[in-house]
Amino acid sequence: MNAPHTLQEPAGPRPYNFSAGPAAMPEAVLQRAAAEMLDWHGSGMSVMEMSHRGKEFGEIYAQAEADLRALLAVPANFRILFMQGGGLGENAIVPLNLSRGGTVDFVVTGSWSVKSHKEAQRYCNARVAASNADDQHTRLPDPAGWQLSGDASYVHLCSNETINGIEFHELPDLAALGSKAPLVIDFSSHVASRGVDWSRVGLAFGGAQKNLGPAGLTIVVVRDDLLGHALEICPSAFNYKTVADNQSMYNTPPTWGIYMAGLTFQWLREQTEGALSGVAAMEQRNIAKAKLLYDFIDASSFYLNKIDPGCRSRMNIPFFLRDEARNEAFLSGARAAGLLQLKGHKSVGGMRASLYNAMPLEGVQALVSYMREFERSHA
Amino acid sequence: MNAPHTLQEPAGPRPYNFSAGPAAMPEAVLQRAAAEMLDWHGSGMSVMEMSHRGKEFGEIYAQAEADLRALLAVPANFRILFMQGGGLGENAIVPLNLSRGGTVDFVVTGSWSVKSHKEAQRYCNARVAASNADDQHTRLPDPAGWQLSGDASYVHLCSNETINGIEFHELPDLAALGSKAPLVIDFSSHVASRGVDWSRVGLAFGGAQKNLGPAGLTIVVVRDDLLGHALEICPSAFNYKTVADNQSMYNTPPTWGIYMAGLTFQWLREQTEGALSGVAAMEQRNIAKAKLLYDFIDASSFYLNKIDPGCRSRMNIPFFLRDEARNEAFLSGARAAGLLQLKGHKSVGGMRASLYNAMPLEGVQALVSYMREFERSHA
Repeated sequence: MNAPHTLQEPAGPRPYNFSAGPAAMPEAVLQRAAAEMLDWHGSGMSVMEMSHRGKEFGEIYAQAEADLRALLAVPANFRILFMQGGGLGENAIVPLNLSRGGTVDFVVTGSWSVKSHKEAQRYCNARVAASNADDQHTRLPDPAGWQLSGDASYVHLCSNETINGIEFHELPDLAALGSKAPLVIDFSSHVASRGVDWSRVGLAFGGAQKNLGPAGLTIVVVRDDLLGHALEICPSAFNYKTVADNQSMYNTPPTWGIYMAGLTFQWLREQTEGALSGVAAMEQRNIAKAKLLYDFIDASSFYLNKIDPGCRSRMNIPFFLRDEARNEAFLSGARAAGLLQLKGHKSVGGMRASLYNAMPLEGVQALVSYMREFERSHA
Repeated sequence: MNAPHTLQEPAGPRPYNFSAGPAAMPEAVLQRAAAEMLDWHGSGMSVMEMSHRGKEFGEIYAQAEADLRALLAVPANFRILFMQGGGLGENAIVPLNLSRGGTVDFVVTGSWSVKSHKEAQRYCNARVAASNADDQHTRLPDPAGWQLSGDASYVHLCSNETINGIEFHELPDLAALGSKAPLVIDFSSHVASRGVDWSRVGLAFGGAQKNLGPAGLTIVVVRDDLLGHALEICPSAFNYKTVADNQSMYNTPPTWGIYMAGLTFQWLREQTEGALSGVAAMEQRNIAKAKLLYDFIDASSFYLNKIDPGCRSRMNIPFFLRDEARNEAFLSGARAAGLLQLKGHKSVGGMRASLYNAMPLEGVQALVSYMREFERSHA
């Protein structure tokens, strides 16, 4: 194995990476990680070489937890857990911890909530309280029509469907809808792109690999009173109370993932737009980025987005060439232009541009320019 | 956030890191990771930014799997799975997949197998077939005396107890002991330090963070015929057959962990000792490293190791100062001498030196020199 001692200067600007996840990370975060790789803050160790119970990693952990709490304005009666297993793991872990083997209401709005509902059937009476399947997951079902149970242990929804490109721009007020159940949201693919109304949420979970850090880290934010009700068959390593009681160190946590997420949290806290900072600044940018691409698509007769404008995702924008025979030419031209990972999910087809926090406005401008030029030369 | 563009040259040699895990990694692996951080092989992406379903990560994954198979001489009828949740996660995941809700025999030899036995009781009739608790986990129970069941779904043992410093230098031949059950081994803390006799093993699991890579990656090597028998309550993300059928990509795998483990596998394959290479070369080095430290301790009246010489671990060497009032002075002097993370586990006390593959002989020599000097100045 060769052993380079210095980083090469990049030959030019980095390409723009539109992957739906694992996804682009802020360049400053990657540079910091490279620079600290062999010696974190004079410790003589890489972060990967530290005992999770040592002083150094303890500092990294505490800072990451505090920064995430500040970024998302997490109230004091919620715990932040750093776990493993991703969103698909949580599809089992949530009902193992919260269902009490009873009834759970699912709002099914796309590929991810379909999977969550299916997996939960192992552990509870998992009902479909609402679904947009008849609309091919292109619009959100009106909360006024949700068939909520009187006795649900919780209500589950996916607040941004990565594959379908559909987003809740406001979380439902379950109490106003007549449900006493806590709301569980899968916010994997838009966490930290906008604020969270914690008054309407009991638990939020998300894989880090879209907006917060590398794959292999799962963030869970859970209200205190929901801890301690796990089924007996819940594995200890995935029992929220066990994890919370041990500051996410019942088992060895994914230390590198926590470190990288922590650097990302720092980067997010430093971002500003006018008088706004942190997540509020990111939300402004994300609105502008998404508007740029949607407006271009809507004005074009060459491209198409099928999602109801009222619930279009700011993060994941699936679009189609009206002539799909040109898909390969579009993708290979995009790669040549430094626009990476634009191919749509196999279940939807077409293209998908994911515009997470790490994607600058310039990346979306470059994409729109390429799309305009491709249309001009192929229409 | 500052954004350094070049790695600083290290001020001098790196300290020696004796952490039990997460543990020291080969310096060449860390340097490669730093150099490739912003642009893996001209892809324009960090490994952390790649879709796990893309061509680039597909190459990384396939190479890592092939290298691990070659290193450990894994037979063709075994599958290699890259999972999440660590050893403590596997304490539930193994019985969820293999117990069939029946009887399982546990050989309890230290802290880790105690935990494995306890966790399995959620899912099956978890029996203690043998235990060294009466010997305070200082010697291995003779297999001839194990009380194996006639109908066990499997037999579980921890082939190296990290906390207690006790290691199976030969795996038991269960068939010769009258059991038809497959053997499950937790090899977290000595995987790739020596060969594995796969003819005696049905499944091996281990967290990567001791000998193979960063925390957050779990390696499972499982014989084909043991797939497909999971309990209905097994989460899909942790169902070995689901994981195997999807090449470890049913859920998003810990891509960075797989990449770092892959670099470590390459480094291991390149290691040689005389005519030996790979794991055989590492085993020679590990024998020499452990002998150096044990011989020194045994010859000293100042230090003490309590483990039966026939089953002392080559990887984890707990030792005590006979005068424990000097522990803090020993540890602070060690840190000053560039010998890190030597404090023993809280459940055992004293000191512990973990001598994983990434620890060179020179590190053990430095430790012995320090111990000799500390004894000379404090005896």
